[in-house]
Amino acid sequence: MKNYGLYTDFYEITMSQAFFLSGKGNDQTSFDYFYRTNPYGGGFLVFAGLSDAIEMIKDFSFSEEDLTFLSKNGVDARFIEYLRDFRFKGNIYSAKEGEIVFPRVPILRVEGNIIECQLIETLLLNILNYESLIASKTFRIVQAAKGRSVVDFGLRRAHGTGAVQASKASIIGGAIATSNVYAARKYDLPVSGTMAHSWVQSFKNEYDAFKTFSDIHPDNCIVLVDTYNTLESGVPNAIKLANELKKEGRKVKGIRLDSGDLSYLSRKARKMLDDAGFPDIMITASNQLNEHVIKSLLEQDAEIDAFGVGTEMITGKPDASLDGVYKLAECDGIPRMKISENVEKVTLPGAKKVVRYFDKEGMFYRDAIVKKDEKVEEITEVFHPSVNYKKTNIEGCKHEELQQQIMKNGEVICRLPSAQEAHCYLIERAQQLAPEHYRFISPHIYKVGLSEALKEERDNFLNNLSS
Amino acid sequence: MKNYGLYTDFYEITMSQAFFLSGKGNDQTSFDYFYRTNPYGGGFLVFAGLSDAIEMIKDFSFSEEDLTFLSKNGVDARFIEYLRDFRFKGNIYSAKEGEIVFPRVPILRVEGNIIECQLIETLLLNILNYESLIASKTFRIVQAAKGRSVVDFGLRRAHGTGAVQASKASIIGGAIATSNVYAARKYDLPVSGTMAHSWVQSFKNEYDAFKTFSDIHPDNCIVLVDTYNTLESGVPNAIKLANELKKEGRKVKGIRLDSGDLSYLSRKARKMLDDAGFPDIMITASNQLNEHVIKSLLEQDAEIDAFGVGTEMITGKPDASLDGVYKLAECDGIPRMKISENVEKVTLPGAKKVVRYFDKEGMFYRDAIVKKDEKVEEITEVFHPSVNYKKTNIEGCKHEELQQQIMKNGEVICRLPSAQEAHCYLIERAQQLAPEHYRFISPHIYKVGLSEALKEERDNFLNNLSS
Repeated sequence: MKNYGLYTDFYEITMSQAFFLSGKGNDQTSFDYFYRTNPYGGGFLVFAGLSDAIEMIKDFSFSEEDLTFLSKNGVDARFIEYLRDFRFKGNIYSAKEGEIVFPRVPILRVEGNIIECQLIETLLLNILNYESLIASKTFRIVQAAKGRSVVDFGLRRAHGTGAVQASKASIIGGAIATSNVYAARKYDLPVSGTMAHSWVQSFKNEYDAFKTFSDIHPDNCIVLVDTYNTLESGVPNAIKLANELKKEGRKVKGIRLDSGDLSYLSRKARKMLDDAGFPDIMITASNQLNEHVIKSLLEQDAEIDAFGVGTEMITGKPDASLDGVYKLAECDGIPRMKISENVEKVTLPGAKKVVRYFDKEGMFYRDAIVKKDEKVEEITEVFHPSVNYKKTNIEGCKHEELQQQIMKNGEVICRLPSAQEAHCYLIERAQQLAPEHYRFISPHIYKVGLSEALKEERDNFLNNLSS
Repeated sequence: MKNYGLYTDFYEITMSQAFFLSGKGNDQTSFDYFYRTNPYGGGFLVFAGLSDAIEMIKDFSFSEEDLTFLSKNGVDARFIEYLRDFRFKGNIYSAKEGEIVFPRVPILRVEGNIIECQLIETLLLNILNYESLIASKTFRIVQAAKGRSVVDFGLRRAHGTGAVQASKASIIGGAIATSNVYAARKYDLPVSGTMAHSWVQSFKNEYDAFKTFSDIHPDNCIVLVDTYNTLESGVPNAIKLANELKKEGRKVKGIRLDSGDLSYLSRKARKMLDDAGFPDIMITASNQLNEHVIKSLLEQDAEIDAFGVGTEMITGKPDASLDGVYKLAECDGIPRMKISENVEKVTLPGAKKVVRYFDKEGMFYRDAIVKKDEKVEEITEVFHPSVNYKKTNIEGCKHEELQQQIMKNGEVICRLPSAQEAHCYLIERAQQLAPEHYRFISPHIYKVGLSEALKEERDNFLNNLSS
């Protein structure tokens, strides 16, 4: 893909045409991106996808072929002319990539005329939802691995070319490398890989397969030991090779287990390797791993030094999607709300920003959603979003605004972080999140509230509607 | 993406380099693509992705920047030279796109030297696994909709740019249109879309929003009625508009429900529309639909004429992945097997083909996996893959070979079908599959067996290994 103008739902086009032709095209708007439910039953989300989304918005334009296609599909010739030189010229404010965020908090805000804000909606949702889903999943898996390496093996089970974004997001979440060479080149990520069963099978015996590989890749000799029988063939052949290489001052770097009970096999293999005098040969494991399996394996003292994680991480199972949405908050100077038949789908009116408060230990304490023009210094209380009498005094708390301006009049005004930089930021922020939010099961709910002014604006809107 | 050489796992590169440098690069091989478990607990898989995968294999080459990246990551200079002019020059045999297939049956076979067969592995798996997953999910949803239209609304929750393949796969599976404009242009798919809540919110009142839209899009006026209150505001405003347009000989085409109980609201809305004299206004519904929800809604006589299905369809929930694999079957003239610690991961040795037998009514009866060089006319019995005494006589059954040659020496030798053509083929084949395989819960298991010759080959291999 070179230009992304068509990377959108068709209704963004039909609506934008209608805004344009009905004279509303210059209405100034504010849209919020937020999500409603923490993925995986966890306590937070790792926000990712910002850099990719911004790069794509920079290339959000329409080729002549694109315009011809739209024309054939009934788009009005006057609007086609408008799209010919279209570029997003609005403002984007966003939390940093790698930030830890919570449900209902506006993570990203887009300001501009209603057409440009509408046209980029689908692209933003597509990229932010997916990368955040995968960065969050990877971070969970990395937590479970307790300092052991996690490598992304997911390309073959990823959702088509979405694998490119996924592998980047896995690095943001904490994978130390990816098997996906395309993503590694595109984003300058560490790349990793050694051998598959087909390598072993292609030789007449397992030992020859191991020996040949070690000759070609002397520094990267991780042998796959489960093609025939892990403990009776694979590990003994790895030890035989290690003894052979020792004579020449060379080494087997590791073995990989890819089937069977990884706890049992790893402990048996570790003992065999240790007894043979090779405590330095590392054990890597793969095969349908996720955070729960890894946690359970390590609770049983599995002797695994690194995990290759594929399907579950790259597809964000079992959720497979993040429910992020992009909602109109203000149009033509007037706050807007969506009421909906489902209470959880009701939105907050008006252009907004987010203030994060810290406790005395510097840990995250509360997030407050406030009106865009509020003076943050004057806010003293944060109100519960739905229970009227509940509020928290936050006077004296250190605070910061979560969103920073990324684009101004269509120009990127800050450097976008690499995947590795976003990961470093995640690690920094993760230390400010209390451990009770990390539990895999029934984590503590982080409190998000409203400023008094925003609460009043919402209540007034609802009162006017019902009157 | 222009060229796909790097769209691979790094171990394909490290192995290929080792094949090349160890003098095995010209070994001739046969690899099989197959899957192990039917998705969604269903009775079969809709095979999709063939055309996309073949197009990508045609562009499987390495740019100078790609080679520089590989070189920086330790790939040997001699192998870099080999890759500089690399093209896949092998043979590919495959079931048709849209075919109904079953677990363990080799759907696609690749023949060529071990390097070219290995390098394209990840790309094939990535594309075939995902498109088959989505085509199969869509087909289930279409079955549940019992003749009502299903439209793909999934782009915003798809896995990044994998949405492009997904929307195509949804058309193969039976969606009548997609909201994804990029995919629609790329694959010449029907595109569809009208308005979001933001359209309605951007006006000071709902009626004005509806009226303005109908003026701009007189032939495509489907109004979203749940922004404020479906039955008290949205539907009455739709009726008001319909009455207004009637005076000018124009029409409201439909309403869309996107929240609340879709069964209740659709019946109420239907009655209101009918009572107002508008039985022709169709009702479309969206909001977290899948085959089970649609089936249940229709069992309660929901008055819904068309379904917009997004997240669940485009992510293939709850599975989110297909376990398709690509396994070495023969190398250098010798059949190969992978034994593995997990019995279900044991493969069948040797180059193979697939024969599908039909019963007297022309319905699918058995699939037989047979040796590539077997004379199909001489096969009289199909053996159970694991239970030795079970076999079926298939003499006199009409039969056909499932795989057809698609590529010969790297050239595509047949026309690849469009998404719509693949869907037509699916419909044709679906009529030959007995209804008991369609059950959503606990469907009948379609029988797949082996020819006697293949069974013997496998048993000999295992006997030799254990002796």
